[in-house]
Amino acid sequence: MIRNIILAISLIILAFPAAVSAGKAKPLTPVDIAREELSGLPVKTELKLVREKGLGNEGFRIDSLPGGGFIVKANAEAGLLYGAMRLKKAMGKTASAAEAAEAARDAKLTGTSVPAFPIRILNHWDNLDGTIERGYAGSSIWDWENLPPAGISPQPDTVPQSNAVVSRLREYAKLNAAVGINGAVINNVNASSKILGEDYLRKVATIADELRPYAMKVYLSVNFAAPMQLDRLPTADPLDQAVQKWWKRKADEIYKLIPDFGGFLVKANSEGQPGPCDFGRTHADGANMLARALRRHGGVVMWRAFVYSPGDADRAKQAYLEFQPLDGEFDSDVIVQIKNGPIDFQPREPFSPLFGAMPATDQMVEFQITQEYLGHSNHLAYLAPMWEEFFEDVRPETLKGVAGVANIGDSENFTAHPLARANWYAFGRLAWDPSLSSEEIVDEWLPLALDGYRKMPEEVREGLREMMLGSREAVVDYMMPLGLHHIFAFGHHYGPEPWCDVLGARPDWLPSYYHRADSAGIGFDRSPSGSDAVGQYPEPFRSRYADVETCPEELLLWFHHVPWTHRMKSGLTLWEEMGGLYQRGLETVEKMQGQWGAAQPWLDSYIYKDVERRLMTQARDAKWWQDACLLYFASLNGRPWPSAARPPIHTLEELNAIKLPISNYECPPPPMLDSVR
Amino acid sequence: MIRNIILAISLIILAFPAAVSAGKAKPLTPVDIAREELSGLPVKTELKLVREKGLGNEGFRIDSLPGGGFIVKANAEAGLLYGAMRLKKAMGKTASAAEAAEAARDAKLTGTSVPAFPIRILNHWDNLDGTIERGYAGSSIWDWENLPPAGISPQPDTVPQSNAVVSRLREYAKLNAAVGINGAVINNVNASSKILGEDYLRKVATIADELRPYAMKVYLSVNFAAPMQLDRLPTADPLDQAVQKWWKRKADEIYKLIPDFGGFLVKANSEGQPGPCDFGRTHADGANMLARALRRHGGVVMWRAFVYSPGDADRAKQAYLEFQPLDGEFDSDVIVQIKNGPIDFQPREPFSPLFGAMPATDQMVEFQITQEYLGHSNHLAYLAPMWEEFFEDVRPETLKGVAGVANIGDSENFTAHPLARANWYAFGRLAWDPSLSSEEIVDEWLPLALDGYRKMPEEVREGLREMMLGSREAVVDYMMPLGLHHIFAFGHHYGPEPWCDVLGARPDWLPSYYHRADSAGIGFDRSPSGSDAVGQYPEPFRSRYADVETCPEELLLWFHHVPWTHRMKSGLTLWEEMGGLYQRGLETVEKMQGQWGAAQPWLDSYIYKDVERRLMTQARDAKWWQDACLLYFASLNGRPWPSAARPPIHTLEELNAIKLPISNYECPPPPMLDSVR
Repeated sequence: MIRNIILAISLIILAFPAAVSAGKAKPLTPVDIAREELSGLPVKTELKLVREKGLGNEGFRIDSLPGGGFIVKANAEAGLLYGAMRLKKAMGKTASAAEAAEAARDAKLTGTSVPAFPIRILNHWDNLDGTIERGYAGSSIWDWENLPPAGISPQPDTVPQSNAVVSRLREYAKLNAAVGINGAVINNVNASSKILGEDYLRKVATIADELRPYAMKVYLSVNFAAPMQLDRLPTADPLDQAVQKWWKRKADEIYKLIPDFGGFLVKANSEGQPGPCDFGRTHADGANMLARALRRHGGVVMWRAFVYSPGDADRAKQAYLEFQPLDGEFDSDVIVQIKNGPIDFQPREPFSPLFGAMPATDQMVEFQITQEYLGHSNHLAYLAPMWEEFFEDVRPETLKGVAGVANIGDSENFTAHPLARANWYAFGRLAWDPSLSSEEIVDEWLPLALDGYRKMPEEVREGLREMMLGSREAVVDYMMPLGLHHIFAFGHHYGPEPWCDVLGARPDWLPSYYHRADSAGIGFDRSPSGSDAVGQYPEPFRSRYADVETCPEELLLWFHHVPWTHRMKSGLTLWEEMGGLYQRGLETVEKMQGQWGAAQPWLDSYIYKDVERRLMTQARDAKWWQDACLLYFASLNGRPWPSAARPPIHTLEELNAIKLPISNYECPPPPMLDSVR
Repeated sequence: MIRNIILAISLIILAFPAAVSAGKAKPLTPVDIAREELSGLPVKTELKLVREKGLGNEGFRIDSLPGGGFIVKANAEAGLLYGAMRLKKAMGKTASAAEAAEAARDAKLTGTSVPAFPIRILNHWDNLDGTIERGYAGSSIWDWENLPPAGISPQPDTVPQSNAVVSRLREYAKLNAAVGINGAVINNVNASSKILGEDYLRKVATIADELRPYAMKVYLSVNFAAPMQLDRLPTADPLDQAVQKWWKRKADEIYKLIPDFGGFLVKANSEGQPGPCDFGRTHADGANMLARALRRHGGVVMWRAFVYSPGDADRAKQAYLEFQPLDGEFDSDVIVQIKNGPIDFQPREPFSPLFGAMPATDQMVEFQITQEYLGHSNHLAYLAPMWEEFFEDVRPETLKGVAGVANIGDSENFTAHPLARANWYAFGRLAWDPSLSSEEIVDEWLPLALDGYRKMPEEVREGLREMMLGSREAVVDYMMPLGLHHIFAFGHHYGPEPWCDVLGARPDWLPSYYHRADSAGIGFDRSPSGSDAVGQYPEPFRSRYADVETCPEELLLWFHHVPWTHRMKSGLTLWEEMGGLYQRGLETVEKMQGQWGAAQPWLDSYIYKDVERRLMTQARDAKWWQDACLLYFASLNGRPWPSAARPPIHTLEELNAIKLPISNYECPPPPMLDSVR
């Protein structure tokens, strides 16, 4: 290993043209990338491999050099890379040594930094046909067609396309390395078995080759029935020897192509996916069988706990009911991957009670960076506050990793909404250091993202900070305040359909299952007198949530069915309070429009207009949500329009008639940006 | 004549079933109608024809009867009718003598009432095919097909339809009589000559027969080229003897069928209509020729001054330039009918300078009750304040009559928007007594129009009053504040198109002709340094309007081109002030939504919902206007969105793409009312 070699390279003058050319050259290493990042900085920088306790394989320490400049020390190349990225972010936009020194001071650059979790991973829900489930930023970046297979000489006429794909992959990988994301599951959890065929694996190997210099590992989602689908085995029973052998062989094949392959992510017996329960086995049986296939290569299995069956009383309880009893049965290289909340990435959920409830099992959290339920790529919703909330209730040290369902596609800026890049960034930063605050992250990100940020007057910058920081709460307010959840349109999860009723649909796929609104009140009774989902929580959460008086109001309707006349802490009735919150959400978006508008002189005009139009769409949608929900609830409770809410500009009939012609991987287009390009 | 007969009829018990049956019974008289109105009142009422100076042919006096009850005295039946209507309006909803007495006191019922103008007339812009130019309340109420021709025995199978038409005509006539409207021009000023053919005239006679008992006369719009079009005369030259003879014969024919026929309304040499100028004659030549044809029968000619030619510098000056020099040349039975403002029924115009500028000529004002430029029948705009403004500048005693372009169609409530009935009502009341205030009229009308009004709490009633009284200013604010005018979409005059540019269109039919917005400022310079339209005004108006410092701000951009940075009295720049006014208009509509909402428990549910939905449409449209105008002007002046205005929810490109598929006689439909009926 190169860990013992001392590298101390001064990088002030050297340039590395080789690093951006594709092909059969000597493979790049993280140190190459680190050097490239540091080239051109106006201060002296050094990289040094050391042996130092406490830095682990990925941590680093930055020290000042005597006479100016900085040195990054790490036990492994990945640490050097992350340290170099840290230097670059702090000083990359400075022009002189003095400026750089000031920026370094501001960024508190020196010191030790070690990631909180070993697994900091993106989950790409990308299909092999290029679509992305719940992706709203274009098609898959993997571009399977033009991706060159590893180990096969390219046809000369495919080289230009291949180079384009590879160059894009490197851009993607660098953005991940900049925040310390160290892996990617590159295909949809609703997995096609085809990804495990040789053709695709060779292309996966190419991706792995390109991500490796950025200290990223590749993982795959696998279909539990792959042995049946790919090789016509009669079963996929995890206790069947032929099945076990098949997976071992498959693992060997993968590792031959990709020696540092990360492992498998599995969605099993969930929403129609095959799994061990189909053969009378448990989730543990299935996960362990896969883990054993990977074990000798060092791969892990991430087994999703996202399960719920039709018919059971409360969907919020099901993951716990199904997984908690299995505690102790999972092998040590299996990690149970649990969504942050008990339902499904709603704008606000309490944490899933499964966290902490399986002390003998490794767990990781699955966040959703893509805004499936927060306005897709039309709405600005800076999600760090949501994840910060999670880490307030779930101690990071109980987790092995953090996964984030990516918001990345082949749109020019990767995320379609220019400011949605902040969520990718924040996810990575929190996965590295969950003690960071949303404010700290936004203060790092804004100057990196907006060239003119530092030149803006203080009040304009303050406006942008406020815009970012308040944006997720605005979404909660105008979509589903007070713990309301899942009152989305059937299918695409973009607009409101609290009235939604689809013939033959599973009840737990319908909004009325969740809001339970009637003439008397609204909310899902999960108290002991209801579904008793609160019983799954540890104290002090259990008692706090169980009592309508102590339950936090922002989760009130998650845990309780409450009369419309219920007195809120404000002194208002629930109905009037709800009206006020829908209105607050709408007005926050309108304020955001103004805050963004104030920054126009310092912004690139295309980005300005792009965001301007998305904010406009968001404002329209906020009113759409307000009208839909309040009109619908008013039709049940017969109450007058809440006085704090702006009068409706839609009718229920009109809103009922809206059927967005979009699939699960499309965002309704924001107004004609191309015409101003 | 029956004028000398003393009628003193106590009407408490009698019922008059004959009055509602159609057919060949003895013709009804105004006294029959008066009796019918009074029947059922809980107090004794009497009607008495008298000879009393000062009451004229239409005035009346109401006195208390000794021992309770009231007596109406008048010199003619029409006066008795109007007096009876007055009693009915004041006491019609009372149930006991005591209540009636109280209502009578509240209404200050006793005393003399005499109309200010002899001509108080509706202009129906109804075409013979049933469409109504600028009509937004359905089709023409005349229903030519089912209208039975006078003097011809009906086919038995047509009687039901005929009765339905006639019953509707009587309903219409009664509503007019209730406010003292004494005539109707029943066809469009863009007149088809066919109306003068015998078939149509016989049907016109039926209308006249039905309106006569309600003291209403029928008038016709005539096409100046009718002799050529109907009887192939080679010319319509008013100095040509054959032409003169033709019109005399036509007048004789009309009067034979309709002995009390009112006369002609003429739109000549205007917007493509034929006229005397086509033959080298003047407007006076044409009008006098027609007047002479009518003279021996007692008819009048109302000759419209609404003329403007393409190419001249300022359209606002043209009526004056063309008509003022003709002062003294019109015969005494010609009345020049002048629109209230110099352009065309904009939400706010200064008065037309032609008023008072032709001392030797009879003049009348033409108001527009139908909301061609104020949101059609979707928007609530109580117009009394607009007409009140007019009478502040133009003394009623200088006018011979008041015409109102009707907002009436065959919709169930005649005006489509239930509250637009207030404008028909207010028009009539002001035509009778222009000293009435908008408040007085709305206080009369609301309890008549809304059954539950008197039962509403004081604050709810106050809300409805405020809603009505502020509604027209709201329209000005959100469409065209500060004297802006005619920035409507081409053709239908509903939505905003400040950017409108139609290839080959007359410049004075395009918004940019009127707003003159550019990077430096906005407004039409009509000061002495500009078109000097102010020069047509008498003092003190001339000086007041000419100076940007003394010009009322609500007319600022009508008379001046002003820099965007111009300091307004508020201390704001013009641009910021404009933003604030657009916002004020929008917020007023939203407040109106709340005021209407508060009255719901006391309102008929269908009317409630109907108005609710129209207000919602109005709120949407107000934001449409705000965004369209401010976005467009901002695209010229490069200024940031005004801080007081709500951020845009549309893009200019989207708004540019809106082309409402409506004709000149259609209103965009408000949201699906039928579905809640």
